[in-house]
Amino acid sequence: MTATVIDGRMVARGVREETARRAAALTTAPVLATVLVGDDPASGVYVANKRRSAAAAGIGDVHRHLPGTASEAEVAAVLDELAADDRVTGILLQLPLPGHLDPARLVERIPPEKDVDGLTTRSQGLLARGEPGLRPCTPAGVIALLDAAGIGLAGRRAVVVGRSTLVGRPMAQLLLGRDATVTIAHSRTRDLPALTRSADVLVAAAGVPGIITGAHVAPGATVVDVGIHRTSDGLVGDVDRAGVAPVAGAITPVPGGVGPMTIAMLLANTVAAAQTREAAR
Amino acid sequence: MTATVIDGRMVARGVREETARRAAALTTAPVLATVLVGDDPASGVYVANKRRSAAAAGIGDVHRHLPGTASEAEVAAVLDELAADDRVTGILLQLPLPGHLDPARLVERIPPEKDVDGLTTRSQGLLARGEPGLRPCTPAGVIALLDAAGIGLAGRRAVVVGRSTLVGRPMAQLLLGRDATVTIAHSRTRDLPALTRSADVLVAAAGVPGIITGAHVAPGATVVDVGIHRTSDGLVGDVDRAGVAPVAGAITPVPGGVGPMTIAMLLANTVAAAQTREAAR
Repeated sequence: MTATVIDGRMVARGVREETARRAAALTTAPVLATVLVGDDPASGVYVANKRRSAAAAGIGDVHRHLPGTASEAEVAAVLDELAADDRVTGILLQLPLPGHLDPARLVERIPPEKDVDGLTTRSQGLLARGEPGLRPCTPAGVIALLDAAGIGLAGRRAVVVGRSTLVGRPMAQLLLGRDATVTIAHSRTRDLPALTRSADVLVAAAGVPGIITGAHVAPGATVVDVGIHRTSDGLVGDVDRAGVAPVAGAITPVPGGVGPMTIAMLLANTVAAAQTREAAR
Repeated sequence: MTATVIDGRMVARGVREETARRAAALTTAPVLATVLVGDDPASGVYVANKRRSAAAAGIGDVHRHLPGTASEAEVAAVLDELAADDRVTGILLQLPLPGHLDPARLVERIPPEKDVDGLTTRSQGLLARGEPGLRPCTPAGVIALLDAAGIGLAGRRAVVVGRSTLVGRPMAQLLLGRDATVTIAHSRTRDLPALTRSADVLVAAAGVPGIITGAHVAPGATVVDVGIHRTSDGLVGDVDRAGVAPVAGAITPVPGGVGPMTIAMLLANTVAAAQTREAAR
């Protein structure tokens, strides 16, 4: 037996098409503002991808590119201007920022209703309480992927490996919101294989290449790989796919699994923010 | 073998004494403002206890008692006045409120730096991110109780039964912050006894009398009982103490376990808020 491969590119395409339909149904087009500080090549590519995908979904584009020497006050002023701009429905501050800037302090300037990355304290508080709000894109993408693959969550054992603010912690909250029994594991966890073998749904978000092996997986379990690492063998995830595929029931590949979902959920959040605004008028 | 009983009254006394010392060391005395709406007898008793304990710790007292018929705008106006009052270092809005008032909306009017109950969205977001902030009193009290009893948490398996906003969810976050491997279980969890038997530390916060029996507990585990229920047999918790005591290594009693810690942590939060304010001057 070999695990079913969950095709993230196909699911992401469906989310993007649905998002484009919802965007077209709005009276005023949604607008995504992207803010890039400095000239990190990877960040430049990510932002370009996001802008291109947004345009393809009928989302308007506002872009601000600041030099890597910009002061925190200068970045803050740009965020404040976008916060005040009624046309802008979503604001994305591309991370990481140059080292002299405080990302947490700057992210807080994004109004919660435009926080399409779901990273402000308020958005994370709403998530922690299980209240409506904009959710971080990568974990929201994992849920959408599981839904599309028909993987049930209510009453199932879910184990999240990794406790980052960006992925692991909000992932655990979203799984709990779907009535899974959720465990969050991390570098201090003892006997990780025994723990992860109790999972019906295992989400690997440790940021360690190949940390999840066949010995970590129960037969038939669903394994979601959030890791992405550039190695001499090409892109690999947190999951040792060759070892896990013969054991798992379903698996997300790297690349082409969770990765494509992140941008798709960013677009979905941008349109959801615009819908909320329109409904409030 | 019978479980060691963790004496919450003794630990709470220690926290209150330490809090009184810290309060006395401040240049300006901390002040706790309590807001009570309506005439629910239990709420009246709770607020009176909190005020008396605060006074005993050298914390100043401001009290507002509104009629049960008060409008949301009237309660909001009182909270806004206390928020603006420089003498007041902590604000507590006693819950539950009369049914015509929205507790979440009213709690949000408390500035995060005076949110000594740790219930605002911002406080919960800070907790979800593992950043400094004021923590909800009952789960913070559980951590203090475990610390006082010398129960290690790093790398240990912790299971929290219950996912309320007030206790279960923040409890899981605090245990994670102490490097436990944390599972949150709830009414949809399958085979609860098998899950809870994997716990080194089991926190019962389900709100169901006696839901945790001897069959739910691993030999030698620590069992913390957050439940408190008035029955014809007197006060009982979520833990069937007679069944669990022969199995567990340590147990918190009801009454006299977690209960006394809640007020102690409220006082500690009030003084911590005042210390933060003084440090910022």
